[in-house]
Amino acid sequence: KMFGALGKNGINVVAIAQGSSEYNLSVVIEKSHIAKALNSLHEAFFLSGTKALNIFLVGLGLIGSTLLKQMKKTAKFLEENRSLRIYVTAIADTKEMLFEDDILMNATEGKDLLKQSKSTEKMDMATFVEKMKGLDYAGSVFVDCTSSKEVVKHYPQILKSAISIVTPNKLANSGTMKEYKEVQKAAHNHGVKFLYETNVGAGLPVIGALKDLVNSGDDILKIEAILSGTLSFIFNHFKSGVRFVDIVKQAKEKGFTEPDPRDDLSGMDVARKILILARETGLSIELEDIEIEQILPKSCEKAKSVEDFFKALEDENAYFDSMLKNAESQGKVLRFIASLENGKAKISLQSVDNQHPFYSLSGSDNIISFTTERYKERPLVVKGPGAGAEVTAAGVFAEIIGINGNLG
Amino acid sequence: KMFGALGKNGINVVAIAQGSSEYNLSVVIEKSHIAKALNSLHEAFFLSGTKALNIFLVGLGLIGSTLLKQMKKTAKFLEENRSLRIYVTAIADTKEMLFEDDILMNATEGKDLLKQSKSTEKMDMATFVEKMKGLDYAGSVFVDCTSSKEVVKHYPQILKSAISIVTPNKLANSGTMKEYKEVQKAAHNHGVKFLYETNVGAGLPVIGALKDLVNSGDDILKIEAILSGTLSFIFNHFKSGVRFVDIVKQAKEKGFTEPDPRDDLSGMDVARKILILARETGLSIELEDIEIEQILPKSCEKAKSVEDFFKALEDENAYFDSMLKNAESQGKVLRFIASLENGKAKISLQSVDNQHPFYSLSGSDNIISFTTERYKERPLVVKGPGAGAEVTAAGVFAEIIGINGNLG
Repeated sequence: KMFGALGKNGINVVAIAQGSSEYNLSVVIEKSHIAKALNSLHEAFFLSGTKALNIFLVGLGLIGSTLLKQMKKTAKFLEENRSLRIYVTAIADTKEMLFEDDILMNATEGKDLLKQSKSTEKMDMATFVEKMKGLDYAGSVFVDCTSSKEVVKHYPQILKSAISIVTPNKLANSGTMKEYKEVQKAAHNHGVKFLYETNVGAGLPVIGALKDLVNSGDDILKIEAILSGTLSFIFNHFKSGVRFVDIVKQAKEKGFTEPDPRDDLSGMDVARKILILARETGLSIELEDIEIEQILPKSCEKAKSVEDFFKALEDENAYFDSMLKNAESQGKVLRFIASLENGKAKISLQSVDNQHPFYSLSGSDNIISFTTERYKERPLVVKGPGAGAEVTAAGVFAEIIGINGNLG
Repeated sequence: KMFGALGKNGINVVAIAQGSSEYNLSVVIEKSHIAKALNSLHEAFFLSGTKALNIFLVGLGLIGSTLLKQMKKTAKFLEENRSLRIYVTAIADTKEMLFEDDILMNATEGKDLLKQSKSTEKMDMATFVEKMKGLDYAGSVFVDCTSSKEVVKHYPQILKSAISIVTPNKLANSGTMKEYKEVQKAAHNHGVKFLYETNVGAGLPVIGALKDLVNSGDDILKIEAILSGTLSFIFNHFKSGVRFVDIVKQAKEKGFTEPDPRDDLSGMDVARKILILARETGLSIELEDIEIEQILPKSCEKAKSVEDFFKALEDENAYFDSMLKNAESQGKVLRFIASLENGKAKISLQSVDNQHPFYSLSGSDNIISFTTERYKERPLVVKGPGAGAEVTAAGVFAEIIGINGNLG
């Protein structure tokens, strides 16, 4: 152990201790040498074998439990081929938490780890964070697979404890600019990572691609995107001969929508996503600044129950049908598009022709198109499934193992 | 400075020196403590300010000089917003090399840095590497913007000196498996990075996306791709009423083709790219293992000059025309597609219908489609310009600054 403090010129080391022996000394490790020391240690560390990651996972819903499954399946491959050892050191749902040395080892499919273990404690987020900090493991990564605002409140403190965070939870990035900046700064100032690729498009390479464009000095001229699998499905299937209400029903039956489909159709989830992309370009922007075109007539919005909503949607069939006919008469299709241009973010229902890259979208795919100074004539486009437990968990997993450039 | 050696249990430190003072001691920094020390140093380093990268750039052609311009333009932004300082410490073309403390500072557009400087020396790759190693700067990155096999020969040695490499040069990854493994292993064993995202699709997020899929344990079922901007342009514009020879001429006039367009039409460049993707999936595969369908009739291949080639292409018009008519009669278009499936890589001219994601490709875009166990119903697709100095340099630049997870 080294004892010392950070001084003006570098680290002042005053003592080195090993076991019960202690050596007093007075050495300044100059700033310029720290980088070299780092390099040497890095190398020594690598030569001596495998790197380790210690995962603290909160949230054992569909994404969290899928992530555990994927880690269990891939752990051996990563250790043997990538010299990376994954320890899951803590897991928690809303009720219970478990701290154990190597939870993954004991994880078998279909087994409720929390219920099986005798060491399980009552979950309390503050206690969880204290325990995690107390362990002070190298390579600690806090993984938030909840959609809880309560968990997000602890982010700044976790980052300040030099623990990185990986999360699909959009709330930290789509709150106020003040909250957003606090988390981003905490990560930056403490040299740890705050990673959230899965906030937009799940496992698709969207935020990483945008970061690369911005950091390499490109100018983002326009972002256009379809960022909701639900709304993608609905409008990709809304063709003449089909009633709008029937497609919404079908989407609900397939489990694509929220329990109340209006939570998708309101565009709020999409607004949070374009907000996150907008902030990534350097814009200081709030959720309220985003213009959202309401696609539902008032009668559908007012309906009290989900049942009443579907009834209202049926009654408004002529409204949706005329929108569709209008588009089709011009050889166009309807697409619910989020866009960012000239510092202005908006979400609107647009008619696009067959020259538009979103014309041929199908299934429930997400699509994101970046038009930049360097991709000016033709945009950089990413397309594919942008929701689902498997691809979301995989995106979280990829960020965990790639943290600090662990993998090439 | 610390003196010591790597022992069985960790690093044996025998002395610490500061200026002319030296303190002898005997401490073992245990392996388990190294990770923690690393973390503390990391934090101290971050708190104390800005990280630095030292770039050693070989190759000042279109990509290399564009990269310098982009770095010059973006350096201030990176320092102020990302706490990252870029030093270009050496540059070289085939004739001369220059080692200077901060070359970027003096770089102004249109100025020939090598000719202007008095410190320029005769370029010699072995000397360049020795000088770079001698400087032993932290955060050293060797950037190869040549397409030279000679430079690639030095990669293992550079990586073994704990210097990372970033390059658009495909030769290291598309040589023999033996050469490929030697470079990959050198990087892995010495804890440094060998990065080559721009080998395929220039600045498009292709190799990174594939690495994330593989590392997170997804199974790659199929890759389909159009990996040549030239061949993309040619077949996207080959429609009834247009002669094949005229499109190839147009592509040449636009500067899209090699001096001899047969170097594009042979499919060899595409073969190198699908080879690199195939190896990224874990396949042990050689360039010769890739089946390339020849699209040119023998008469075109045999033609001695480029002029004769165009003459032969004109004479074979009926051949190309019948291929096109055959496809169009089925409502299909022709696409030159590289694919990987069941461990077999091949490149062939295919007729695809409007259900295929490559049907609506236009301009000279590249497109890459990954079908995996997790992206099974619908693939993950990346599309956009896959060639050009600006987007290639930007891709190289993004990898340089993102190295070791420097940026979020």
